[in-house]
Amino acid sequence: MIIVLKRETTEADAKALLGKIEGIGLKSLYMPGSERTVLGALGDERVLGQLHLDSHPLVESVKPILAEYKLVSREMHPHDTVVRVGEHAVGGQEIFVIGGPCAVESRAQMVATGEAVKTAGAQALRGGAFKPRTSPYSFQGLGEEGLQILEDVAGELGLPAVTEVVEVADVEAVCRHADALQVGARNMQNFRLLKALGQCGKPVVLKRGMAATVKDLLLAAEYIVSEGNEQVILCERGIRTFETSTRNTLDLNAIPFIKQRSHLPVLVDPSHGTGRRELVEPMARAAIACGADGVMVETHHAPAEALSDGAQSLFPEQFARLMTSLRTIAEAVGRTMSLGAGT
Amino acid sequence: MIIVLKRETTEADAKALLGKIEGIGLKSLYMPGSERTVLGALGDERVLGQLHLDSHPLVESVKPILAEYKLVSREMHPHDTVVRVGEHAVGGQEIFVIGGPCAVESRAQMVATGEAVKTAGAQALRGGAFKPRTSPYSFQGLGEEGLQILEDVAGELGLPAVTEVVEVADVEAVCRHADALQVGARNMQNFRLLKALGQCGKPVVLKRGMAATVKDLLLAAEYIVSEGNEQVILCERGIRTFETSTRNTLDLNAIPFIKQRSHLPVLVDPSHGTGRRELVEPMARAAIACGADGVMVETHHAPAEALSDGAQSLFPEQFARLMTSLRTIAEAVGRTMSLGAGT
Amino acid sequence: MIIVLKRETTEADAKALLGKIEGIGLKSLYMPGSERTVLGALGDERVLGQLHLDSHPLVESVKPILAEYKLVSREMHPHDTVVRVGEHAVGGQEIFVIGGPCAVESRAQMVATGEAVKTAGAQALRGGAFKPRTSPYSFQGLGEEGLQILEDVAGELGLPAVTEVVEVADVEAVCRHADALQVGARNMQNFRLLKALGQCGKPVVLKRGMAATVKDLLLAAEYIVSEGNEQVILCERGIRTFETSTRNTLDLNAIPFIKQRSHLPVLVDPSHGTGRRELVEPMARAAIACGADGVMVETHHAPAEALSDGAQSLFPEQFARLMTSLRTIAEAVGRTMSLGAGT
Amino acid sequence: MIIVLKRETTEADAKALLGKIEGIGLKSLYMPGSERTVLGALGDERVLGQLHLDSHPLVESVKPILAEYKLVSREMHPHDTVVRVGEHAVGGQEIFVIGGPCAVESRAQMVATGEAVKTAGAQALRGGAFKPRTSPYSFQGLGEEGLQILEDVAGELGLPAVTEVVEVADVEAVCRHADALQVGARNMQNFRLLKALGQCGKPVVLKRGMAATVKDLLLAAEYIVSEGNEQVILCERGIRTFETSTRNTLDLNAIPFIKQRSHLPVLVDPSHGTGRRELVEPMARAAIACGADGVMVETHHAPAEALSDGAQSLFPEQFARLMTSLRTIAEAVGRTMSLGAGT
Repeated sequence: MIIVLKRETTEADAKALLGKIEGIGLKSLYMPGSERTVLGALGDERVLGQLHLDSHPLVESVKPILAEYKLVSREMHPHDTVVRVGEHAVGGQEIFVIGGPCAVESRAQMVATGEAVKTAGAQALRGGAFKPRTSPYSFQGLGEEGLQILEDVAGELGLPAVTEVVEVADVEAVCRHADALQVGARNMQNFRLLKALGQCGKPVVLKRGMAATVKDLLLAAEYIVSEGNEQVILCERGIRTFETSTRNTLDLNAIPFIKQRSHLPVLVDPSHGTGRRELVEPMARAAIACGADGVMVETHHAPAEALSDGAQSLFPEQFARLMTSLRTIAEAVGRTMSLGAGT
Repeated sequence: MIIVLKRETTEADAKALLGKIEGIGLKSLYMPGSERTVLGALGDERVLGQLHLDSHPLVESVKPILAEYKLVSREMHPHDTVVRVGEHAVGGQEIFVIGGPCAVESRAQMVATGEAVKTAGAQALRGGAFKPRTSPYSFQGLGEEGLQILEDVAGELGLPAVTEVVEVADVEAVCRHADALQVGARNMQNFRLLKALGQCGKPVVLKRGMAATVKDLLLAAEYIVSEGNEQVILCERGIRTFETSTRNTLDLNAIPFIKQRSHLPVLVDPSHGTGRRELVEPMARAAIACGADGVMVETHHAPAEALSDGAQSLFPEQFARLMTSLRTIAEAVGRTMSLGAGT
Repeated sequence: MIIVLKRETTEADAKALLGKIEGIGLKSLYMPGSERTVLGALGDERVLGQLHLDSHPLVESVKPILAEYKLVSREMHPHDTVVRVGEHAVGGQEIFVIGGPCAVESRAQMVATGEAVKTAGAQALRGGAFKPRTSPYSFQGLGEEGLQILEDVAGELGLPAVTEVVEVADVEAVCRHADALQVGARNMQNFRLLKALGQCGKPVVLKRGMAATVKDLLLAAEYIVSEGNEQVILCERGIRTFETSTRNTLDLNAIPFIKQRSHLPVLVDPSHGTGRRELVEPMARAAIACGADGVMVETHHAPAEALSDGAQSLFPEQFARLMTSLRTIAEAVGRTMSLGAGT
Repeated sequence: MIIVLKRETTEADAKALLGKIEGIGLKSLYMPGSERTVLGALGDERVLGQLHLDSHPLVESVKPILAEYKLVSREMHPHDTVVRVGEHAVGGQEIFVIGGPCAVESRAQMVATGEAVKTAGAQALRGGAFKPRTSPYSFQGLGEEGLQILEDVAGELGLPAVTEVVEVADVEAVCRHADALQVGARNMQNFRLLKALGQCGKPVVLKRGMAATVKDLLLAAEYIVSEGNEQVILCERGIRTFETSTRNTLDLNAIPFIKQRSHLPVLVDPSHGTGRRELVEPMARAAIACGADGVMVETHHAPAEALSDGAQSLFPEQFARLMTSLRTIAEAVGRTMSLGAGT
């Protein structure tokens, strides 16, 4: 950590701060300059955090040297983590595609959509039972009934089930019904939920928050891993910017940036990342081209009837085309992608 | 709601959509143009939402006419809502100031800081027991012990206690210890928590999320009010933008914008809104000047020792100066501000 | 255009506004509702702009129906525009790659870098002679001397030269030396410059501004085309967001969005779009995967010596690898890419 | 400057870099740590810029210690700069208000609006002759005819004239007609224009760009001052964010932040900063309350007829009320404000 002191700091003030740094067992450095004095503190920045140097009235700014996340970083763990979801390995050689509707609406809808997802060759089935919706007047999901439908339909199709959990109190129930638990963008910094998922023993798909930096996302993952669960799959789903032609701005820069700094697998959600059906396929291709380990895509057997996010849901035939198109890109970047029973 | 159809839409397609609109009892309008056909649907947009017209493959865009929030809007409720916190009225003639540390750290800290807050003349005491922190290695709060300390110290000082609640399971406990419950920026769209607070019977201070539009904030308030709790106080605390010289960008435009459209009281948090101690007083003045009903300000008896957010916490003497300075602005805009026992 | 009136508007007020709309020869519509009266005005929105309806005190909001850009839209011009730069066609079947340093620094540097660009198989050579730099203390470019060096080196290599123009007064000189003129992000809304380029008769590479929406970019292109120059190539180069791990946020959503709405070719600049050398190749791949017609990439024979943007400049061997890698993606999406003399 | 090296850097590599730093006459520091080696380079960061250390393949990141702007900083020039516009001093004790229409439309319009501005007591008259407009189909200004009208009307009223310059070639003409030249948001980084204004001898009102950080704004001012013109007045006018309820997000945090770090006067433009007439007065009050030296406000004798920005233009009676209201705030913060001949 580099500590830039205010102009008015005396040598005695600086020395007192150096004493504090050494007092917690860290290596300190003293760099008096003509315009500013700068201090260095080398060692674990988690320990340094305890000094709260940024609060000191003589400290102008504090610049960290090392990343604040540790367990999820490649420096601590150089090899790729591979997370198993059902019989698939996420983060290895093979591309992983999760398809399904935004929300579980009925058994008939899940059967129709699930069959299309399976036929197209996707690796997992999604469907939300608890829906966080901006307006209280929007459809809020079927709750536990939805979980049961998802489990049943996924089971019949032989696909692992992925679904969102929004509340600590639901973690146990969701674990009973699903193969992987998803944390939505709005809950990326629901730290209690993250800690509970750190103890749940199931894979977690952690979506990036709308205002979260990559560092925030990695620190959120650190919450889950530091509680003992290493099965974390990150998911880029777009951030909020001034651009209004798309629902969010899909930040694909984040994919190679994260893959270089973290060992965790990374998916992309081009459905929320664009909010427009006609942009989903090209952006899914771009995701695989820049190194994502897979995509999560919304599809519905009848999007015009969908109770939520219909405008970004693919028609079944679009989803099937997407799968074929992704396989070509996967091969172009040296990955593989099976189209399952569907091909 | 205005529905713009795609170019390729036939008259028959358009008529079919009009039938759907009329089928749910709304007034429809048909506007064929030379380049585009436009449909109108007049009536409660909450009902219109059921049609999911934005998902229809022939619909290019859907433009709402009326605000999606209803209960919190001035159109439904033209007069200012005044929320009572302790013996103070928030949203009336008088300016309301909440002071205190970011986190409850110990009884001694709360006594020292609380006395400074009381002496300076603030109307309420804050202090967090459950701290949502970006990094798992940061101080996470004292939990229920912190709630007890806050309640005790506030009680001795005769100030109402305001504290954050982060989880549905904690609502009951927090209600027992506090006079008003705060929802933090990261939980603004934790809809389960909002619903639980809608039934808790206590005033709620709802902070704007870092990526939340004003509309999102008002819809989040609508969740609480629609569950039966009208005692909602909104709080602007800065949004996330590209500007890095301050921790957040305090969006004061939102204050007069909200006051013109909603009847709910609005506070400003210049501590999180700037992240810099030396900007807190000027921005608190600006908040009152543009119509805020009060401010929430972090102060600590010894900021350099604070376990969280020390860099933005005022020293006690700065907090006292802030109070005097705010009273002058309050009077300049025709409001009043008591400096309590402190003057 | 849809005009939503304020609540207090009387029928007479509304009728007066309708009269104004009809007075300029447009079709008007009157839609009285229970909560709001809405007016419609159908016809060319450029004419409607003359009424300045958004300024009217009784108008709450105005919502356009049609895009404000016309000449650059697919509706007016359904087929892809193909722009010729040197002997290459941009916007057709073939991928177009512009390589070269950020700035022309010396003849030796341009020769060394230009040869690497040519050998790797790129289609054009770039190099800036006039450098817009955030700080007055940074290298500002060689000016006309730089233009001459670029022209000479590109000529010897048989590559077309692309360079930035920052000022109306320079347009003529730059046209003499270069095959295509680039408008940088900071000048995207320098409308005088755009108008001058609309009359220069050379292809223009128009980069998106850091705060420009896709609509702003298309309207900027409309300035050039409306002055008579249809040879416009758009270029996405990242927008400014809260994310600080990369220099900008590359908005690849914009590529398929623009390709669906405009007939103009679109390039991507992954160098400025990421600001980090190690992210350039994956993001260039992503660009081609989602439909870009080519990329513009910074490379330098010795990046550690570069006078500007060295941190994002590829080493020659990285640039060569990028070219090979892009060809694989180009083929995966059904495009072609020649590696020129270099292969 | 602090230079963090990559993990793989050897001691010999680090020493070579230290040699480079010392080679340009700066003080260097070597800080080997267990996880990273960190170098320090103390001295003028303008000189350090020449080393391009951020381009070096072994450099992970470079963190400046001192601000890159010098001439505009308080460290170099601790006392407030006061800029004279007409007979008024901007940046001193008195609040400075510029009023007038967005664009000069006709002599009659300028007379009617100018009289209202004068009567209300404003200190200067604005009006644009060259209008940068997002769409080529919008009114582009009257050009030199507009400059003449502005000069004539301002002269008759005895008010200094402020108007925008968009192009180096126009600087001389604008200087002949106006008392102060304004650089609009879209030209804040038109560095050629800034340099020309650095030699023009007239006061310059420099507006912040829509995507410009405070640091970018100060570096743009540094361009003007470094060419010899110290008469620079900064102007905050809102930045582009995800919030769409207002045209821009007025960043008032920037006011006290800049006032603490720079000696230049700072104005606020609440008209562009909000884009909504009904928010202008409260935000102008907030601007003065947090320390702005004045405001620039759009007003029109008949806003519903305005050829540009009518939706944010005040009616004359609103402008007069604003002036009275601002004086009260000015006095509350210990400033003065004359209401000129108007009171």
